[in-house]
Amino acid sequence: MKKKSLFPVINGLMHGCDYNPEQWLDRPDILEEDIKMMKKANINAVSLGIFSWSVYEPSEGEYHFEWLEKTIDNLYKNGIYTILATPSGARPAWLDEKYPEAMRTDCYGQKEHHGFRHNHCMSSPVYREKVSNIIRKLAEHTGGHPGVIMWHISNEFGGECYCPLCVKRFQDYLADKFDNDISKLNHAWWNTFWSHNYSSFCQIEPPFANGERTNLGLDLEWKRFTTWNMNDYMKSEIKLLKELTPGLPVTTNFMQFYSGLDYNVMAEELDVISWDSYPALHNDSEPFYKTMENNSFYHAVMRSMKRDRPFMMMESAPGLVNWQEYNKVKRPGVHKLFSMQAVACGSDTVQYFQWRKGRGSFEQYHGAVIDHLGKDDTRIFEEVKDLGDALKKISKTAGTVIEAKAALLYDWDNKWAIEDIKGLSNNTKNYDAVCCSFYSAFLRLGIEMDVIASDRDFANYGIIIAPMLYMLRPGVADRLESFVSKGGQLLATYLTGYVDINQLCYLGGFPGDGLNKLFGVISEEIDTLYPSDSNLAKFKDGSEGSIKDYAEILRLNGAEVLAEYGYDFYKGTPAVTAHSYGKGTAYYVGARICNDSLRRIFLEMAEKAGIEYKKIPLGIEYHKRTAGRENYEFYLNNTEDVLSVENVTGTNILNGQNIDGVLVLEKYETAVIEASK
Amino acid sequence: MKKKSLFPVINGLMHGCDYNPEQWLDRPDILEEDIKMMKKANINAVSLGIFSWSVYEPSEGEYHFEWLEKTIDNLYKNGIYTILATPSGARPAWLDEKYPEAMRTDCYGQKEHHGFRHNHCMSSPVYREKVSNIIRKLAEHTGGHPGVIMWHISNEFGGECYCPLCVKRFQDYLADKFDNDISKLNHAWWNTFWSHNYSSFCQIEPPFANGERTNLGLDLEWKRFTTWNMNDYMKSEIKLLKELTPGLPVTTNFMQFYSGLDYNVMAEELDVISWDSYPALHNDSEPFYKTMENNSFYHAVMRSMKRDRPFMMMESAPGLVNWQEYNKVKRPGVHKLFSMQAVACGSDTVQYFQWRKGRGSFEQYHGAVIDHLGKDDTRIFEEVKDLGDALKKISKTAGTVIEAKAALLYDWDNKWAIEDIKGLSNNTKNYDAVCCSFYSAFLRLGIEMDVIASDRDFANYGIIIAPMLYMLRPGVADRLESFVSKGGQLLATYLTGYVDINQLCYLGGFPGDGLNKLFGVISEEIDTLYPSDSNLAKFKDGSEGSIKDYAEILRLNGAEVLAEYGYDFYKGTPAVTAHSYGKGTAYYVGARICNDSLRRIFLEMAEKAGIEYKKIPLGIEYHKRTAGRENYEFYLNNTEDVLSVENVTGTNILNGQNIDGVLVLEKYETAVIEASK
Amino acid sequence: MKKKSLFPVINGLMHGCDYNPEQWLDRPDILEEDIKMMKKANINAVSLGIFSWSVYEPSEGEYHFEWLEKTIDNLYKNGIYTILATPSGARPAWLDEKYPEAMRTDCYGQKEHHGFRHNHCMSSPVYREKVSNIIRKLAEHTGGHPGVIMWHISNEFGGECYCPLCVKRFQDYLADKFDNDISKLNHAWWNTFWSHNYSSFCQIEPPFANGERTNLGLDLEWKRFTTWNMNDYMKSEIKLLKELTPGLPVTTNFMQFYSGLDYNVMAEELDVISWDSYPALHNDSEPFYKTMENNSFYHAVMRSMKRDRPFMMMESAPGLVNWQEYNKVKRPGVHKLFSMQAVACGSDTVQYFQWRKGRGSFEQYHGAVIDHLGKDDTRIFEEVKDLGDALKKISKTAGTVIEAKAALLYDWDNKWAIEDIKGLSNNTKNYDAVCCSFYSAFLRLGIEMDVIASDRDFANYGIIIAPMLYMLRPGVADRLESFVSKGGQLLATYLTGYVDINQLCYLGGFPGDGLNKLFGVISEEIDTLYPSDSNLAKFKDGSEGSIKDYAEILRLNGAEVLAEYGYDFYKGTPAVTAHSYGKGTAYYVGARICNDSLRRIFLEMAEKAGIEYKKIPLGIEYHKRTAGRENYEFYLNNTEDVLSVENVTGTNILNGQNIDGVLVLEKYETAVIEASK
Repeated sequence: MKKKSLFPVINGLMHGCDYNPEQWLDRPDILEEDIKMMKKANINAVSLGIFSWSVYEPSEGEYHFEWLEKTIDNLYKNGIYTILATPSGARPAWLDEKYPEAMRTDCYGQKEHHGFRHNHCMSSPVYREKVSNIIRKLAEHTGGHPGVIMWHISNEFGGECYCPLCVKRFQDYLADKFDNDISKLNHAWWNTFWSHNYSSFCQIEPPFANGERTNLGLDLEWKRFTTWNMNDYMKSEIKLLKELTPGLPVTTNFMQFYSGLDYNVMAEELDVISWDSYPALHNDSEPFYKTMENNSFYHAVMRSMKRDRPFMMMESAPGLVNWQEYNKVKRPGVHKLFSMQAVACGSDTVQYFQWRKGRGSFEQYHGAVIDHLGKDDTRIFEEVKDLGDALKKISKTAGTVIEAKAALLYDWDNKWAIEDIKGLSNNTKNYDAVCCSFYSAFLRLGIEMDVIASDRDFANYGIIIAPMLYMLRPGVADRLESFVSKGGQLLATYLTGYVDINQLCYLGGFPGDGLNKLFGVISEEIDTLYPSDSNLAKFKDGSEGSIKDYAEILRLNGAEVLAEYGYDFYKGTPAVTAHSYGKGTAYYVGARICNDSLRRIFLEMAEKAGIEYKKIPLGIEYHKRTAGRENYEFYLNNTEDVLSVENVTGTNILNGQNIDGVLVLEKYETAVIEASK
Repeated sequence: MKKKSLFPVINGLMHGCDYNPEQWLDRPDILEEDIKMMKKANINAVSLGIFSWSVYEPSEGEYHFEWLEKTIDNLYKNGIYTILATPSGARPAWLDEKYPEAMRTDCYGQKEHHGFRHNHCMSSPVYREKVSNIIRKLAEHTGGHPGVIMWHISNEFGGECYCPLCVKRFQDYLADKFDNDISKLNHAWWNTFWSHNYSSFCQIEPPFANGERTNLGLDLEWKRFTTWNMNDYMKSEIKLLKELTPGLPVTTNFMQFYSGLDYNVMAEELDVISWDSYPALHNDSEPFYKTMENNSFYHAVMRSMKRDRPFMMMESAPGLVNWQEYNKVKRPGVHKLFSMQAVACGSDTVQYFQWRKGRGSFEQYHGAVIDHLGKDDTRIFEEVKDLGDALKKISKTAGTVIEAKAALLYDWDNKWAIEDIKGLSNNTKNYDAVCCSFYSAFLRLGIEMDVIASDRDFANYGIIIAPMLYMLRPGVADRLESFVSKGGQLLATYLTGYVDINQLCYLGGFPGDGLNKLFGVISEEIDTLYPSDSNLAKFKDGSEGSIKDYAEILRLNGAEVLAEYGYDFYKGTPAVTAHSYGKGTAYYVGARICNDSLRRIFLEMAEKAGIEYKKIPLGIEYHKRTAGRENYEFYLNNTEDVLSVENVTGTNILNGQNIDGVLVLEKYETAVIEASK
Repeated sequence: MKKKSLFPVINGLMHGCDYNPEQWLDRPDILEEDIKMMKKANINAVSLGIFSWSVYEPSEGEYHFEWLEKTIDNLYKNGIYTILATPSGARPAWLDEKYPEAMRTDCYGQKEHHGFRHNHCMSSPVYREKVSNIIRKLAEHTGGHPGVIMWHISNEFGGECYCPLCVKRFQDYLADKFDNDISKLNHAWWNTFWSHNYSSFCQIEPPFANGERTNLGLDLEWKRFTTWNMNDYMKSEIKLLKELTPGLPVTTNFMQFYSGLDYNVMAEELDVISWDSYPALHNDSEPFYKTMENNSFYHAVMRSMKRDRPFMMMESAPGLVNWQEYNKVKRPGVHKLFSMQAVACGSDTVQYFQWRKGRGSFEQYHGAVIDHLGKDDTRIFEEVKDLGDALKKISKTAGTVIEAKAALLYDWDNKWAIEDIKGLSNNTKNYDAVCCSFYSAFLRLGIEMDVIASDRDFANYGIIIAPMLYMLRPGVADRLESFVSKGGQLLATYLTGYVDINQLCYLGGFPGDGLNKLFGVISEEIDTLYPSDSNLAKFKDGSEGSIKDYAEILRLNGAEVLAEYGYDFYKGTPAVTAHSYGKGTAYYVGARICNDSLRRIFLEMAEKAGIEYKKIPLGIEYHKRTAGRENYEFYLNNTEDVLSVENVTGTNILNGQNIDGVLVLEKYETAVIEASK
């Protein structure tokens, strides 16, 4: 692919942060100090105005933008660019007082009181109008400024509303989706069960907590509608912005772990993907390198939404956050490692929430570059500054991208459907963790993997991993069949192809929609294991893999057996199979088998697909960013040990060292190797 | 007793299932397949129309019964009988839309939204009227059909309503109960405490979650009222049915573990008792045979409500259920064992929820005879068919009953009162588990035990066990005294006779109402043990029994000491006593002592009462069904080991084998021995 | 100090109980028995009328005081005095029916239903008027009686109300506090963050559960307002009582563990402090002596509110309570020990809830002197009677007080602020436990410690311990500086001086407001440890102390290092420091270090401050009450072992024994040593 620079005016990578000068307007000394220290810390961009509505417009119709104009100007003069937010992430109190319909109604049907931030009704015409007004004003005052390089829309979209307006829009959305034919909806939701048939769309209510909580179709469509409605709102902001400032790109910041919105849908509307990365580093439930692998997975999720360009890590915490169960400080060196991981995974930015800790309120202890202490000689400041230096050294990586040849299928509505399954065990469904563990398995082989929606094009890939692909979107089964028959390597697991997009079970044998022919197996039963239970997969080569949580009992339908169950009444029956199909192979892993024991299958798939893999020690994370003939290989030591990687050739542009053979990485060290062209 | 056949047209035991053809009206191929496979599986009855209201009457006044008539007819022609449900277990959406007063109000006083199923207001005149209408229509169309052999009323009654209508009915119920004299209620509820006196019945509200939660009398009467009101509703359906179809018996299906309704009260109105049995088989907290013993206890609870006739196991799951914490599949052979247990315990039916899995909605993964796969060669189908064969072989057991000579006292309002005790520890009250453990202890001795309300006749019994008989209904103390004085063997425990039916403590020493004379002990204090605490009962013969949770400190009042406490400041004081009284004995077990160490006392009681007991290995469950001179002995091997029972004589009618001496039972095997007459 | 007798008419200590004769008006035999048994048990006072409103006034305007007058009279004739309650702790049902505005609105904005007891709206004019009426009537009928010696106001104040009236009062309270200038409030609450600025006071709502839960300033002021409003209500009762019966002292009973009200504020209005002491004795999470130390801490909290006079233990349980997780009975001897602890800590009363167990309702199993058994030969009665004898023997201790020379700073609003910190870990903040552990450490050295609000006078003390003094009230930093410079010994810990009274962080380095100069350290970071983490403090003398939960990374600012960290990236940096300042020393303990390892520092502080300490074995609790030249030393053996204390001289007035050297204490024994004058 071609190099694609997100911000041409920034020569290299962005080192930025949220900046809230409006909290310090009575302290010009501090504002002056800010600029000085930003320059010292190599900050080249800030996000402004995210929560400034009540300062822009302290009462309805009274506007104050002077301070903002002055700030943008001052920053620009000092070489610092501005990402300007639309302030719709939090409303001023006067708005709720005057227009209470802008506030949400909760899942009990109770109107919420004013408070928090993202809790406006996305359907509210009044709210849209007020947002429109303030955005117009904002664009008037700042739109043409050369320092402003991007719009950040609202902030961290999320939540739901159950008000009458939303209920009506939901009914309209359903009527539209089901061709105004209530019997189609009744069939799709299997409403004859428990006498749940509706006779009119206007009888349908959202899944109120004290209402209908037993209709899976309703649950799923409500989630789809919530994304649809949020997106509809977001589009209304984007439309206006494109009108007012045609040249400026738009983004909004997605959140790790947030499962209430299908980000794949919203991504379509954005010019650039950005997200906020806040893993619980140094937690006590897993080794540090696993936390880093999980974070790498989420980087891949975000990166894969727009494969042809870099993404942005819009927020991360210098030091620590303030909302985890235990808010442990980042160990020395981890700040650089963590930030480098973002770049290694395809981000062209390392941005922080936030520049300076506010004196009060909910996030007064959230990590920031500048502490309440106010000094630039703190450990945190030194690490931020040091990272800023490092980003400069690797500025040529900006605009390059990752070109993955393997993909993992990951659908939000599949996740929602799995979480809502009435069966199995709610304690062990763990869709995200399972997906992440497959991603990690390939990461440890040095194989870069996209994480994509199942309706995305498969043409770029030689390997597809489809963990727990419970719900099949229309056409996916056919496209997988076509992928394999043309030579693709496909691996699926237990819980594949049980239901269609309405969550109606396929008849005639899982995996359904024709997939039991592709995989050459039929799943007759699925056994749910207690935590104290386990089973064993015994592979033909004598190796074994432990089984937890789920085990399907399979009928062969043409596939070859790779492993059998070792225990229980289904001992000796197939646990893992492979089916040669056309020019490719379809693997089926019938149980939740430890991924380590599947490593040989992954290697076999890579070899068949002609995808290179690497021998790297556990704890080293490897990525490659490219553009044209440029190649930058990132090696991250996610451990406290000194580790070596063999067969590395090129120049470590972080320290200028030439490597030809063994690369030695200190604790938490990163190397960025520029290959000889 | 005499043989009492529930369904004369069925020659033998019923093998049935819930059947929902209305879900497949667009698939006549499937409906045709259904009948064929039912016959193959030896199904001879189905339950129809349980949740069919919205198909019968998709909008108000528009009726469709053709499909039902056709189904009943078709089944009948194929030798399959119909149990027809009244569809009041779930309302169509149009009803709630048009008559919102039919929906319940929750314990916060909030009107619930439409959804789920059993959530209609039992007081609502509109709802009763609409139910009445649909039942009349139903009877019109199907009432006279020879294939219809029973009415199944509503489905799984449960829940409460706090709407103004229910509040008013509750006040009227109380006024009636307390002779329109508020001072009587005030005294009964001890309302002077915390200034809780009412000056009028219209001041009384149910125990709203945000209202009165500290009045024990109110709590208890609210539960009694809920049963009263639910029963009143059920009687309205029964009255109508008896009018429309005088010949047909009626039942409703009770639920295991459901403690919101006093089933003893509702049982009075029914012709036959039926219940839904869904234990968590193969769970990880107890051995399998204990789960089976617990289930046996619930069979006994249901069976004992009508001692003179068989009961029905109206629902059970082929394969698995979908709502337990871990939904593990039934191991091979367990289906037959589990179903045979029902028959052994006095059921004349083995029925399933359900015939065929629905494609969608809340129970799409609940076990069924026919899976989404749609085949009759699955493991589950084979096991169901095999069971059908076995039921035929033992068809002569139909109509026989269990004649128990021991009884365990079990009152719903005693359970409610214990759960509401403000004292002891809410973590360890465990009334059901304690009752069940006494039942198990006798089961292991081969002694059949009825589980009866304390106001039932004691004349049939030689032994009465009264675990935690905390609340004494009027007359019970006198009747127990009379029982013992005439030669009965009575055993009671800690927490006996503390309160009267209003939960007012007896003055003058527990157990009250004269029982401290009968038992010859007075309980001065009750010590609640932490889980890490324990004590020891040291018996006179040197044996010991461990003590957990509760220990009463007793004063002797004429009894003999059988065991003393081994530790703590009450070491050496009485823990277990016996009191010879008249011709019988009254045993008092003052602490929660491990039942194994009480075995000798149980044997002593049996010997004194002249009740036969057996030597059977742990894990074998034994029952005897009789009628006139017929005798059928059931031996169930509730373990995975091969076990032997000595001194068995007769013919195993399941396999035709004659036994004279040792009966060997394979893993999960059942034997049904017909004694030589 | 001078001897200050609370009740001159009682010659010595009060032995009393709540008494509810209104529950037994239909049982004159029982009422007669009561007086006899009270005399036998050495009871000399009772609390009457706490929940009697519905008996005084069963319907509006209908009064019945005859029974009360008769009871007071009868008791008086038998030498038993009456503490008379205002009955406002629980309303009759007719009041809520007729004046629903008297009921509270919950944090969801829902009006509560009638029920429980303390749930009236403190702002309600109607409620105040009705209370006023009944108090006037009560005073009319009983006020002049010589048997009545005190008013007990309402009972166990607690809770909050969110009704419109309270919301309005809250807004007015805020407007008043912030000089009617909304920008002052906005700045104090840092409302620019998340666009939270208000433009008018009337936009401010309390922290509704479905409203604003992210504004720390709002949270804190709501708590302060709740105290203010409750106090305002209480003052309205006191004002009236002082008018009607000018001579009678007033109190209200505080509750252990209740953190919803700042008792220091309410204490100002009372003549005597009283409280209800209900620790979970014999629990399974700590040794018994630790439970006693914790209770001693709460005695100190209460005692210190009025240093110049004794306090009252208004409630305690004979036997057991009924609301703990496991309601274990008090072991023999513990009743006396526990009651003696109250006296040792400065109480002039030992009072019980309650005299006789009620037959029904919520507290029917709460311990009482007389059980449902109704006898005076129970273990509990004997122990109560024995205690009554003992109290007589030490009656000369009445009126003496504890004169502490050490103080621990403990602010309610500091506690609220710490609990609301968004950061650290909510699992390990444990403010109360940490304060208590410092109190215990000094108790084990025989050093008596006051527990005082930080704005109380420091002049009486030589040592001040300030654990987790997170929030600094105005002037406190200066006053501590002055305390140390004049020779005081001050010790503070991690989390000192982070915020001002609005919870705005100090700029320029914690501990703020100048304290980093006093302590000579600046805290740069605070690390939050997972439960599986730990660190070590390595002291200069080679000793070590384990560290859990929190560790600050310190910069030296003039202090001397006493201990360094042993592990982690901050190994070798200061963990504990001392700073000589003026004539005193300021110690800083930067981490949650095990108190045992700080013992030497405590001794050093005591030596420098010239405060005597004692060598007493672990498990012995020591207190000294004095007045003029009188001295009474209490030694409590809080263990089951026989323990000895050396260097004891004087007469044990409990048994008349003269001690000169070693005092031997049996299990749970108390000695009260009168020193030779």
